[in-house]
This record gives sequence, structure tokens and C-alpha cells, in this order.
Amino acid sequence: MTVEIDRTRRPFVMHEGVAILERTPGTLNALLRGLPEGWISGNEGSATWSPFDVVGHLIHGEQTDWVPRARIILEQGESRPFDKFDRFAQFKASEGRTLASLLDEFAAVRAESLRGLVSLGIKDSDLERRGRHPELGVVTLGQLLATWVAHDLDHVVQISRVLARQYSDAVGPWRAYLRVISGSQG
Amino acid sequence: MTVEIDRTRRPFVMHEGVAILERTPGTLNALLRGLPEGWISGNEGSATWSPFDVVGHLIHGEQTDWVPRARIILEQGESRPFDKFDRFAQFKASEGRTLASLLDEFAAVRAESLRGLVSLGIKDSDLERRGRHPELGVVTLGQLLATWVAHDLDHVVQISRVLARQYSDAVGPWRAYLRVISGSQG
Repeated sequence: MTVEIDRTRRPFVMHEGVAILERTPGTLNALLRGLPEGWISGNEGSATWSPFDVVGHLIHGEQTDWVPRARIILEQGESRPFDKFDRFAQFKASEGRTLASLLDEFAAVRAESLRGLVSLGIKDSDLERRGRHPELGVVTLGQLLATWVAHDLDHVVQISRVLARQYSDAVGPWRAYLRVISGSQG
Repeated sequence: MTVEIDRTRRPFVMHEGVAILERTPGTLNALLRGLPEGWISGNEGSATWSPFDVVGHLIHGEQTDWVPRARIILEQGESRPFDKFDRFAQFKASEGRTLASLLDEFAAVRAESLRGLVSLGIKDSDLERRGRHPELGVVTLGQLLATWVAHDLDHVVQISRVLARQYSDAVGPWRAYLRVISGSQG
């Protein structure tokens, strides 16, 4: 008898989630710091975001979203809905900044968030504790922390996709093989 | 009069393409080295690839695909089709290896490729030179080099997506907001 292991899903486990969270600033730093300006300001048209915009968005999340919401769950539970998250705050906050300074700030605020997370002293049993999202309704602390991780990765996907698609025409006939350009999931 | 700048496309320019190529090993190193094993071996089901598999695939590309094909274009033009690329070579080649050793090898072979690229002494006018892909037909050197860059980024997208989707269930109601999980382009 062979047992098929499901490799497509994992439950949220604190040390595994933190392992991703602590790597994201270094990943974006390695990918983006020092790139020619055209890469940094590229986007997918009209109101879509550039890599520069995304880094600003990630900074704003550290300041207002993840650890603050975890604290609300632990201290006030479902009685106090989270504040809404402003998905456009970075456009004002990043104005006139350099990408290098945004990357530095993201690394600093992420490190601060991870210290804040430790200070909350979350136990496995706390992951089931419930809070209230202003639109999604009841959510758990474990779901919030898993979302923090997946949200990081979603934006690494986005940045890499925005960069890749800059060459949608330049790759010529190869576009059929490049899933990020052809749009197929692959 | 305002002039709308198109930020969605770039032509291939050697120093801009190389700027991405030289960053990919560091990006994957920052994202993956030391991650718990469950992340490294996660995939999207059945025959899909894990982050471990993708790093092996990138190594194989350095050895057989990009610079070797550029050399064929410069030396033999359209008269000699490229060798086919084996998309599954890494399953044998990576067997029994650690991720750390694959990351080290990728960094080494990529650095070697970039030295090889410099040694070809490609001028802007060479980017129009033509070769023959066994399936796609006539392609240019510029298209090959742009594809090398986009292929790197495509696999950074893939690795980040595979990791994020491990939490497809763990994020609960937030899955509606996470484009990498919901599947919407965003």
C-alpha cells in the first residue's frame, strides 16, 4: 500500500509562517534594489501597481494591519471589528521616496512586527480565537496570520509578474511558453 | 498636453536584462534557504513542481539552454536548430541533493553564464540575428535573451504561488481577497 502525501496544503504553524515573514524583506531587497528605474516603475496598465507601489503597500500593512489586528483579537475578540485597511495609502506615503529607502523601511517595520508578534505570546490554542473583519465577518487569529504570510507571497508574485510582462513583446514567439505572459496557470 | 507614458512594455536592453539575471540567485536564496522542509517540497498537486524542483530546472537551463543557444545563433544562425530542452532533467539530477546545494550550484552556474554572455561580445545590432527553434521556428538573439529574463521571473512567480497556495485553506474567508489563491489576475 502506498500512501499519497498531500503536498498542496499546510495548516498554519507559527514557526513555519514566521519563516516566510522574516524572509520577505530580503527577497524583495535581492530582487529589486539597484534595478534600473524602468523596471521599478513598470506596471500592468492604468491603475495597476508598480514594484515601487507594492513595497509602499507592504510598509503600510505592517503599520496598520497585521499585528494591530492580532492585538484586537486577543484583547477585544469579536466585539470590536478591525479598522478598514487603506489599499491606496502608499501613493501619498511613498511620494518623493526612493525605492532603497522604502526597502530599508520595510525591513525595519517587518522586524518590529515580528518582535511585536513574539511579545503577544500566542499559544497554539489562541489560533482559534475569533475577531470580526468589517467585511468578511468572523475570522480567527490563525486565519489572520496565515493571510499575512500568503499576502506577502501574493505580492512577490505580483512584482515578479509585473517585471516579466514588461517583456511580453520582447520575447517574440516564446510568449506561448511563458505562463506568466500567456496568462495560463501552468 | 500630457503625454501618457506606457509603463507596461520594455524593449530588451542588455544591461537591463542582465540586471534581473544577476539578481535571481540572490532572490531565490533569500526566499528559500533554510525554510522548513514542508515549504520546499510543497506543490500544486500531481505532476506539478515544488520549489525544490524549480531550482533544479533553473540549473539545467544554465547548462544547456541560454548561453549555448546564443552561441549557436552567433556561430551558425538559422542553419542549425537549437537542441530541444529537457523540462524534466532536474528530477534525476536533483535526486538526493539538498536545497542548499542546489541554490549554491544555481548561483555558480548563473555567474558562469553571465561571464559567458560577456565573452560573446554581443552588440546591439547582433540582437536581430536569427536562429531556429525546433518548435517555434525563426527567433532572434534579442528574443532569446528577453526570454531568459522572463523565464527567471516566471519561476519566481511559480515558487511564490506554490508557497502561497499551501495556505489556501488556512486563510479562511480571506481567500476571496488573495488573488494568488482565488486565481483572479488582480
